[in-house]
This record gives sequence, C-alpha cells and structure tokens, in this order.
Amino acid sequence: MDTDIRVTGIEVKDIRFPTSQQLDGSDAMNPDPDYSAAYLVLKTDTEFEGHGLTFTNGRGNDLCVEAIRQLSVHVLDRPFSEIVNNFGTFWNALARDSQLRWLGPEKGVIHLAMGALVNALWDLHARIEEKPLWQLLADMSPEEWIRCIDFSYITDVLTPDEALKLLRRQEDNKAGRIRELRDRGYPAYTTSAGWLGYSDEKIRRLCREAVQAGWDAVKMKVGGDLKDDLRRAAIIREEIGWERKLMMDANQKWDVDEAIRNMEALSEFEPWWIEEPTSPDDILGHAKIAEAIDPIKVATGEHAQNRVIFKQLMQAGALDICQIDSCRVGGVNENLAIMLMAAKFDVPVCPHAGGVGLCEYVQHLSMIDYIAVSGRQKGRMTEYVDHLHEHFLEPAKIENGHYILPDQPGYSIEMRQQSLRDYAYPEGSIWR
Amino acid sequence: MDTDIRVTGIEVKDIRFPTSQQLDGSDAMNPDPDYSAAYLVLKTDTEFEGHGLTFTNGRGNDLCVEAIRQLSVHVLDRPFSEIVNNFGTFWNALARDSQLRWLGPEKGVIHLAMGALVNALWDLHARIEEKPLWQLLADMSPEEWIRCIDFSYITDVLTPDEALKLLRRQEDNKAGRIRELRDRGYPAYTTSAGWLGYSDEKIRRLCREAVQAGWDAVKMKVGGDLKDDLRRAAIIREEIGWERKLMMDANQKWDVDEAIRNMEALSEFEPWWIEEPTSPDDILGHAKIAEAIDPIKVATGEHAQNRVIFKQLMQAGALDICQIDSCRVGGVNENLAIMLMAAKFDVPVCPHAGGVGLCEYVQHLSMIDYIAVSGRQKGRMTEYVDHLHEHFLEPAKIENGHYILPDQPGYSIEMRQQSLRDYAYPEGSIWR
Repeated sequence: MDTDIRVTGIEVKDIRFPTSQQLDGSDAMNPDPDYSAAYLVLKTDTEFEGHGLTFTNGRGNDLCVEAIRQLSVHVLDRPFSEIVNNFGTFWNALARDSQLRWLGPEKGVIHLAMGALVNALWDLHARIEEKPLWQLLADMSPEEWIRCIDFSYITDVLTPDEALKLLRRQEDNKAGRIRELRDRGYPAYTTSAGWLGYSDEKIRRLCREAVQAGWDAVKMKVGGDLKDDLRRAAIIREEIGWERKLMMDANQKWDVDEAIRNMEALSEFEPWWIEEPTSPDDILGHAKIAEAIDPIKVATGEHAQNRVIFKQLMQAGALDICQIDSCRVGGVNENLAIMLMAAKFDVPVCPHAGGVGLCEYVQHLSMIDYIAVSGRQKGRMTEYVDHLHEHFLEPAKIENGHYILPDQPGYSIEMRQQSLRDYAYPEGSIWR
Repeated sequence: MDTDIRVTGIEVKDIRFPTSQQLDGSDAMNPDPDYSAAYLVLKTDTEFEGHGLTFTNGRGNDLCVEAIRQLSVHVLDRPFSEIVNNFGTFWNALARDSQLRWLGPEKGVIHLAMGALVNALWDLHARIEEKPLWQLLADMSPEEWIRCIDFSYITDVLTPDEALKLLRRQEDNKAGRIRELRDRGYPAYTTSAGWLGYSDEKIRRLCREAVQAGWDAVKMKVGGDLKDDLRRAAIIREEIGWERKLMMDANQKWDVDEAIRNMEALSEFEPWWIEEPTSPDDILGHAKIAEAIDPIKVATGEHAQNRVIFKQLMQAGALDICQIDSCRVGGVNENLAIMLMAAKFDVPVCPHAGGVGLCEYVQHLSMIDYIAVSGRQKGRMTEYVDHLHEHFLEPAKIENGHYILPDQPGYSIEMRQQSLRDYAYPEGSIWR
C-alpha cells in the first residue's frame, strides 16, 4: 500500500441486543445471553472508515469497549501503510503491549478487543483497496501473506518457509475457485433449530422449515439432562432423516469422562461431530475424547483463545474440525496462521458463527481458506444462524444452504446507524 | 460457619505504583511495568471487612477494577455463611456467570477479577474466625476442604475421593509441621538481584548483598540478547558461587526450539530451573523443552490461566516446578485444587511472588501446602522480591532466607490507608 492515510480517531460503542428475552442463543452454559458487540469505527484523514466489532454475551461488553480504546493508541496518528505493509510485526507489537499483556497474554478481554481492532484495520485496508476482504487476500502474493503473520510460538510446527510452500501450492487455481464460489457459494449449516431453551414443538417446526429451506446439515445443543438430549435428538432425526448431517454442541458442559459416556449414549443418532465437549483449554482432554468416540468427530475452536491452543489441538490429534472464530483470536492475521496450520495438518476449517456479525465476518475467512489455503471444500461447512442480520448494511446472504460470495468493499461488518443508536447500551431507545 | 453476617457493600480502587521509573520488575516481556493492584474492600453489617487485590502491570488495571465490580453482585446481600459453607459450589457459579463467562472462560481479566474477589472472601472468612488464612485452612477437616473445591474439568485426574485420601494422609502430623514453621519459617529465594533493566554493576552489588543476607538461591532474568544473558550469568555465579542455586526466568520470550537452543548455551552456569521458557499456553511445548534440557528443570505457572492448564502440564510431564500464583487463577479455592493435583503428581509447588502483595498472599499458600497437602519442603522454595512491602499493614517477613509464619487474622493483604490514598490512579498525590 502506498498511501499516506492516517487513522486520526476512534469511536467505540457498547451495543447490546436483548436476546435473552426469547432464549435465542440459549445453551448449556449460556442460559440467557444478551448478544452484544463492542463496536468500533476508525476515522481517517480521508473519507475512508474502518469498522470492526467483537461479540460478547452482554455484561462485560463495556470491558471490551474500554480495552479497545486502550489498545487504539497503537494505531493512531501513524501512517496506515506502515501498519499494513508490516502487519505481522505490528500484530506482534500490539499483542505484546508491555503493560496490557499482563492481563492475557493473548486471551480473554484484551485479546477479544485486539481482534476487534485488528479486524477494523483489515476492513479499512479492504475499503481503501475497494475490494471485499476475501478478494484483498486472494490478490496478495504468498510473500505478502507471510508478512501479515506473527509466527511467534508456532515455529515448532509451522515456519514461514513451510507456510510459503503451502500457499504457493494453491496459487495456480485461485481464479477457478473464485469462479466456483461466484456460481455456487460456500456450503453452510444451520444452528437456528436446536437452541436448548426451545420447546419440542418449536424444534420440530424449525427442523421442518430447515429441510424445506434446503439445509443439508443441522446442529443441536446438548449438555442439559441426557434424557432431554436423547428425546430432542430423536425429534430432529425424525424431521431431517438420516441422510442429512446432525451435529451436536455441548458448549463445554462436560468433564472428559462424562463427555465420553454421554456421547456413547447419543451415538445412536449418528452425530457427525460433537462440538465443545469439555473445557476449551483442555487439549489432552479433547484428544482422549476424540480417541474414545471415533468415528464421531470432535470439533472445537470458538473459545480457543489463540494460535498456541490451536497448534496443540492439532499436534495432539485432538481436533477433527477446526472451528475458527472471527473475534475470539486476534483478528484476521491470527486466523490466517490457524488456517495455515490446519492445512498443514489436513484438518477441515468449519468456522463458528452466529452471535452478532460473526456470519458476516467468517464468510470471508471460509472463502479465502478455499481460494488460497486449503483449496478444498470436502468436509467443510460454515455455521449460519438466522439472527440479527438486519442490523448490518451488507448482511450475509444464504441461498440453497450456501453463503453467497460478498461483493462490497470491506469486511461486511458495518452496522446500520439506526441500530447503533437504538441498541446502544444503556442509552439507546431499546434499553431506556 | 454459623453467623448471619452479610456483605453489604464493596469498594474497589485502582492503585498504581510508578515502578517503571526505576526499571524494578523489568524483564524480557515486561520492559516498563507500573506495578498495580485492583484492590477491593468487602464491607459487612458488622465491624469485619474483607480485603483482596489482583496484581497487574499498569494499564488495564481499571479493567480489573470494573470486572470486580460486576462480579460482586454474586456476593452482596446474601448470608456469608451460605457462600463459605458451600464454597466450591459458589466458586463454580461465579466462574459460570452466564454472561461474563463469554469473556474467558476462566482466564484473563475476568478471572483475575474473580481471584481478587474470592481472595477477599477468604480474608473476611479468616478475620471472622480470628485466624491467619493458613491456620483457618489447617483447622479444616479434609471433608471441609473438598467442599471448597470446584472439581469441574479435572475429575479425569483428580476426583473428590482421591483428594480426600491425599488430605487424610497429612492429618496426623499437621501440628508438628506447624511447630516447625513457627521455629524456622518456610524457605524462600530472591529475585531482587537479576532484573533485566539493571546494570552489570548493580547486579553484582545486589548478588553480594543477597549472599550476605543469607540467601541460598537467586533468580536472574534471561531472554534478552543471549550474549548478555551469558555475561550476566557469569557475574552472578562469580558472586554467589556454585553451591547456591541459580534459577533463570525467560518470561515467555522464546519459541520452543529457540528455548532448547538457548538453554543448551546457558547450561554451563548450571541453572536449577528455567522459568517460562515459552508461551504459558503451550503445554506440549513445555513438555518438549523439559525432555530436551533435562536435568535442568522447567518451571511455569504465573501465567497459567487456570487449573485445566496446570492439570495438563502435569499430565504431559511438562512441569518440574509448579509456580502457583495467588492472583492469576480464581483465588484460594482454585489454588487448593492445583496444589492437590501437584501432590498427586509429586510436583513441588514453588509459588510465584513479587508484584504488589503477592509475597503477602503466597506465604500462606506455601505454608498450607506443607502443613496439609504435600507435607514436604524438599525441593520447594517460595519467591521473594523486596518491593513495595511497606504499603501493607502486615508485610511478609523474611529471616535468614525464610518466610516467617504470619500470625494476624486474615490473608495479610490489607494496604495502608495512606498508600491507598497516595497511589490511587489517577487522582492520588503520586500521579497528580
């Protein structure tokens, strides 16, 4: 990039949706989420803006707002090209902010905040280049990619040279894969049917609607009472049949041996994967579960705090499905590192989505994984939840169970002004 | 406990010390820390108060202050006996706060805040019982201990029954070990000599003083330029000789293979352990390093976010020295779980200290580890750093390289009113 644009200011907003009233998003560990976003706008000395957010469950969203403010000193009033031309170095410096690092490192509130800020920088970068994010990345050379990545703590499994080789492998057929994505989109699955707080009747109706809408794969929440899980799985299988995929999500409810026992009971419904069977920090626990319940796959990642955890999940053979999250880790750069490790270990990337804006974000990551990293769609699907898309200027679009390739410049995350006003916490009209 | 005391209010303060001016506490990852405390006082409907803090490096201390405030709703206006008589259940509910949990879970800002709050509850508990914390715990039965612990996510290595057996093993000789601690104290080592920002002359002088003060073990910071590390290690060995222990601390600076290479170079100075050789999240990395550099021991823990990480470090054989931290995890309760796992795996517990108030806190944990959990001192030492003790009402006391058994009721963490006023950020006299 050869511009002298500078980020001159930042606005951060606490946006919350009262979703706990309908039990949308309710699961074994999150009974009453108020889906929220710590939302930021980077202002520049031009007409360009960068938008970003991190997703939270309500209380504590203000902590992320404040953390974004504190991290933003690193981007203000310096040439934007200096940041994005050496993005990996910049990312490392941000993660190692000498005082804030103590609060992590690279985890929890400050890492969520860093993800929001980094994603806003990518949104700004893509808008300046007038490309959707996936295309900005697709047009970069392997050498340019490498400069975006902080390889610290992962060189024992992936060196910059190995990453270059992985990327060069996919160079030739990028254009063909982009055409394919334009024609058919990227495969998705739906989680809208199986929230834990829903009644049996509602689940049955939603499954029927999902089949009619063309979905091939449906995910249900488990981890409540085992008898309830079994009854609900039976209802879902009645509605979706046995050809479609059924995934289960325990949201970290179980201990390791408990997960193995419960999945033995639930195996009669032939789940394709079990998601978050136990603590997201338990690499060796996931490995033990994966070995015990094979051929049911183990999926995790939405709470995997950074690339170091993903690295080990792959080293330990604990991860059959890599569920990157657009907000949990430090934004696009860290997700590029994780996707490259997944390609090396041949683990399919099936991003986590839902929440606020996660579908809008991760569609770009899935597209670029296909175009430039893994080059494959086999065994890969991106989550889709039909919530809150109406608040975005360019909501993710689904047709026939596939995400449609985004075509507007940026990272698709800008929210409507009216929504930003109405759902501002605590002063917006919805909360007053 | 049979009282109807209630916590009726909470005061939380942002306390910061401008330590970056002297480079006290400077290391490879923390070049300019302003040692800080998110400090709280629990007020009750009696004259009793509970004090607690979590330690940070400066910026972001306000995030912990606000997180403590948000978590405190769980302790207000309910019978205090209900909390402490079922402390494990309460701890679990606090860790699973249905909205705040998203920001962790059990890591980073919200877990640091939870640690401060939980420690303040223990301080209050001990004051009501008119005992120092170590004695409150020593007087509890194994069954009462078990009720303080949340075993979730660790039952695959430690069940409540196994924990009971470990505790019963030490029941008979508690009184003898307490007498011994009264006579001799608990062994300590000093880190005051080896901060990275100090000149060679200052290191030499401090090492000489440490030897004169009776220290048997000295720790130095490494992870800067390797040539500097080698030169400084040579100076320290010249001053302390080869009989005393020399420990090294890399503060997470290295990648895995880099740590192995650098420790091969530094091995000529016979370090007893290398502390934090790489990312605190990298269990498998620590295991690889431990295997490669044996007989040099691998120590870590001050940034190990919770019991799930400690569990795996022990399962993987990655941890020769278990450095529990009083603030990083969720307070006393979680440290009891970690000490019990260490006892099961026969890993010595050598707590991390320094910072603000960490020495005051962890002396109790080392004492109780000896009295009731491991029953051993062999290969165990507690860190001591000679900083900022003057701000505490009952500062940790060292004699002849040993911590003296604390004798006042509580957890020794109450700060002087004058210090709380002067160092309040940003309004205190020091910052104005």
